Amino acid sequence: MAKSQYVVVVGCGRLGSILASTLSDRGNSVVIVDTSEDAFNQLSAEFGGFKIAGDAVELAILKSAKADQADCLLAVTDRDNVNLMVAQVAKTVFGVPKVLARVFDPAREELYQEFGIATISPTKLSAEVFLKEL
Amino acid sequence: MAKSQYVVVVGCGRLGSILASTLSDRGNSVVIVDTSEDAFNQLSAEFGGFKIAGDAVELAILKSAKADQADCLLAVTDRDNVNLMVAQVAKTVFGVPKVLARVFDPAREELYQEFGIATISPTKLSAEVFLKEL
Repeated sequence: MAKSQYVVVVGCGRLGSILASTLSDRGNSVVIVDTSEDAFNQLSAEFGGFKIAGDAVELAILKSAKADQADCLLAVTDRDNVNLMVAQVAKTVFGVPKVLARVFDPAREELYQEFGIATISPTKLSAEVFLKEL
Repeated sequence: MAKSQYVVVVGCGRLGSILASTLSDRGNSVVIVDTSEDAFNQLSAEFGGFKIAGDAVELAILKSAKADQADCLLAVTDRDNVNLMVAQVAKTVFGVPKVLARVFDPAREELYQEFGIATISPTKLSAEVFLKEL
């Protein structure tokens, strides 16, 4: 990726915290959003980005994350429907050029694609690797 | 993989059902184990293996799945500690040659490796793909 992008990461669980920490370490401007302040404890000690405690489903929260200026938004909460909604709003309301969402349920991927949202499915990825390992 | 292996899949969630269905379709002998009978509805209509409703943490259940004859066991429930326990028992008690476990928490992977269990982490896999996509 190009150096120093502005990336909004929604969801600070295991995946979100790894992504936010890594992207920050690589010199990008990162804003991480989670409903729980405690979630931010999973970030690396060196995390140099901003943390916003709030529900990204609310427009005001994405606005305070300056989503309108973001090069990229990653919707990686543990809930597929939240990821879809946030990704959709990022794309249509804030015009974020690159939007990626995690989707656990492979059956939902089609719905995302209808909205022009790129998806990454941990279930599919894992299945591929398991089958390759056998 | 070699044709017609005997594979025990523990956990019939999204991942387990994909794996069991695919492996069965490819001509392997598959036994799928889940605590909930309802979970088996996720299997493909063509699934030709055996279904065992029960808790694989109990030795009797793995025994009834004929784990001692299995070429391979996949521990893919939604719970890391269940996967670790089942994988460990499969390896040490039943002598299954190939044991693979899903582990959500990357911090636990080291523990699995100490027990000689190969792990696949959906979190790590997803992080790699997200970072590559950016």
